Amino acid sequence: MPKISEKGLSMPESPIRKLVPYAEKAKKEGKTVFHLNIGQPDIASPQVALDAVKNMDRTVIEYSHSAGFESYRKGLASYYQKSGIEVSHEDILITTGGSEALTFGFMSCFNPGDEIIIPEPFYANYNGFAKTAGIKIVPVTAKIEDGFALPPVEDFNALITERTKGIVICNPANPTGYLYTQDELNRLKEIVAENDLYLFADEVYREFCYDGAKPFSVMNLAGIEQNVVLIDSVSKRYSMCGARIGAIISRNKEVISTALKFAQARLSPPTLAQIASEAALDTPQSYFDDVVSEYVERRNIMVEGLNNIPGVFCPEPKGAFYCVARFPVDSTEKFCQWLLEEFDYEGETVMMAPASGFYASEGKGIDEARIAYVLNKESLAKAVKCLEKALEVYPGAKKSSEINEAEVKEF
Amino acid sequence: MPKISEKGLSMPESPIRKLVPYAEKAKKEGKTVFHLNIGQPDIASPQVALDAVKNMDRTVIEYSHSAGFESYRKGLASYYQKSGIEVSHEDILITTGGSEALTFGFMSCFNPGDEIIIPEPFYANYNGFAKTAGIKIVPVTAKIEDGFALPPVEDFNALITERTKGIVICNPANPTGYLYTQDELNRLKEIVAENDLYLFADEVYREFCYDGAKPFSVMNLAGIEQNVVLIDSVSKRYSMCGARIGAIISRNKEVISTALKFAQARLSPPTLAQIASEAALDTPQSYFDDVVSEYVERRNIMVEGLNNIPGVFCPEPKGAFYCVARFPVDSTEKFCQWLLEEFDYEGETVMMAPASGFYASEGKGIDEARIAYVLNKESLAKAVKCLEKALEVYPGAKKSSEINEAEVKEF
Repeated sequence: MPKISEKGLSMPESPIRKLVPYAEKAKKEGKTVFHLNIGQPDIASPQVALDAVKNMDRTVIEYSHSAGFESYRKGLASYYQKSGIEVSHEDILITTGGSEALTFGFMSCFNPGDEIIIPEPFYANYNGFAKTAGIKIVPVTAKIEDGFALPPVEDFNALITERTKGIVICNPANPTGYLYTQDELNRLKEIVAENDLYLFADEVYREFCYDGAKPFSVMNLAGIEQNVVLIDSVSKRYSMCGARIGAIISRNKEVISTALKFAQARLSPPTLAQIASEAALDTPQSYFDDVVSEYVERRNIMVEGLNNIPGVFCPEPKGAFYCVARFPVDSTEKFCQWLLEEFDYEGETVMMAPASGFYASEGKGIDEARIAYVLNKESLAKAVKCLEKALEVYPGAKKSSEINEAEVKEF
Repeated sequence: MPKISEKGLSMPESPIRKLVPYAEKAKKEGKTVFHLNIGQPDIASPQVALDAVKNMDRTVIEYSHSAGFESYRKGLASYYQKSGIEVSHEDILITTGGSEALTFGFMSCFNPGDEIIIPEPFYANYNGFAKTAGIKIVPVTAKIEDGFALPPVEDFNALITERTKGIVICNPANPTGYLYTQDELNRLKEIVAENDLYLFADEVYREFCYDGAKPFSVMNLAGIEQNVVLIDSVSKRYSMCGARIGAIISRNKEVISTALKFAQARLSPPTLAQIASEAALDTPQSYFDDVVSEYVERRNIMVEGLNNIPGVFCPEPKGAFYCVARFPVDSTEKFCQWLLEEFDYEGETVMMAPASGFYASEGKGIDEARIAYVLNKESLAKAVKCLEKALEVYPGAKKSSEINEAEVKEF
């Protein structure tokens, strides 16, 4: 029998996957499981996007141009221009999800063995895309006590070697919900310029910013235009995760023309989903206003609820629809499994993603979990209640004397 | 400005792409260009597939399972069983086109630096997928005089080294239309078994076999079940190239579980297109009967027409909708460019794909071109006429005394 490749063997499994059998078992036993572990919103996709597909008059589902429909690329350029980002459709390549945008970007910009610095905790699938491209992720730790703000410049500088070729950020961030300030991004700019690095920014949660906060795009960092690569996707913006339409955007023409060669090999992004995505550009502002106000209410229920549980600490996120909370437990991997296997409160329990899967540094985040607040408010309130009740009886819970309250209050 | 990766720099461009500006110019000048260069059929997609999308009752375009809809995988297993291939849905992973199936397969089975043997001429995008995985394609030449039959076993054996880890075939083949006999596949089986190689077979043209010929799947080669990886796609079968739905199929559980890890990183294949593809499984046999009889007529017009042109030789393909013909010219790259730039017959000309792009060996196929007979019969007849007239005046045409008729008639 022939062997599996080394890359295949070392390819990481989804960190949430380990818990899936326990969740399935819990459901078979009749428990209601509140899924706080996944980033699939329950929000309806825009009607205008659904209608475009339902009313299409095509009789052949043909290939599109490898870079995507030109009309869609032009429409997307207008969308960015309205968001204050000056780009032309020639700076945009449509991809099969943000995933493919990252893969093409990494393969176009980095050689096997190159290092990229990513603030941790970070979106776990970056590991898979880096592995695919044969590059090494070097984590720089953002601390929960700092609300997951950008780590100090010195921490980046301490990690930069000859092999460092890029920095990757997600803004607003999955998994923390942290939104970088313009000041933080300017600090990043200095590091990028000084070392001539690529700066990849995954800004797929751009439309989800709260409390009046405005996102500042890396595309507007003056002076590093040739270094910046923007990753985008319709998945979250329009609640169309299954469309698999993303984009890679850069003013660096070599990056786009190289990514296009990878795109040509795979022929074209999905046609039906491009029809939906192009139509989604006409989504009325009221859709986003409604969605944002819904997420703010959900966030408040979740984050206030969590912080009201003794020993739990959760920084308030300003964007996306995730938060990372610290729990007074031995290990969130064990706690999350126990919640599914051993616990229920009035027939209900909770599934969360242990945060250790979002850290590349061994041993970090072992008492943290990522929570996606993508369920309705009633379910979120019940989920908080479950967690409160669970911590009262979980065998691995820390006693209040063991919890470092000082550290928490410092923030 | 940061550098582009070595892989990105060496990533091949589409071999047809070079001619695109000439085709665009010809059209701007008012010429009709018959596109014999592309594999996008003009055949309508099955109504049942279009209707499934148009009538869907989803309000959220959600992620599917990373392996694809379970219902679709089960339906696909039934489709294979009806075709005489015994597989279960657990042997099937749904991918974003056959392209992703090949990429996941190559990355799961081969290490950077490994060699795979492919009979040439071969589908040019295999170069891109191999480059992505960092592996080296070693070509074994199939000869036009042999009608592109499988090269002799000795030719394979002469190329096998310690680094050889697999063989890739396309059956029926793009670009030649050649359909391997069971005897040829048994010879391949011996090579695979003796050297414990992977055998990848791209069988996306399975439904397009002519003159009563039946395709024999590598999945039915007894004794090498753990070595065989099948690549499939809905693109050609249902004229849904833009759906971007393919599959990787293997009874080797390690291959499928490894490919699933790559699939998890990219989350899911496109949901809308999976709806269409699952519905397409109910396409009536009459659809295929009609399509096959249409392609036979087209093939006959094209291949007979080509062989009636003095000095042109085209083996008759038994499958797919391509043929590779030899032209009495100095170079088909020059001839194809000249056709677009300098020539027209009654305002019409032809675009073909020079075959050199389908050979990995330097200097092979320079007087051959790939022709896709995916246009209506009237256009194909006109295209043949154009080629006949063109060869009468092309400055690089060989004189009849220069053409080795003996070689041609030998076949």
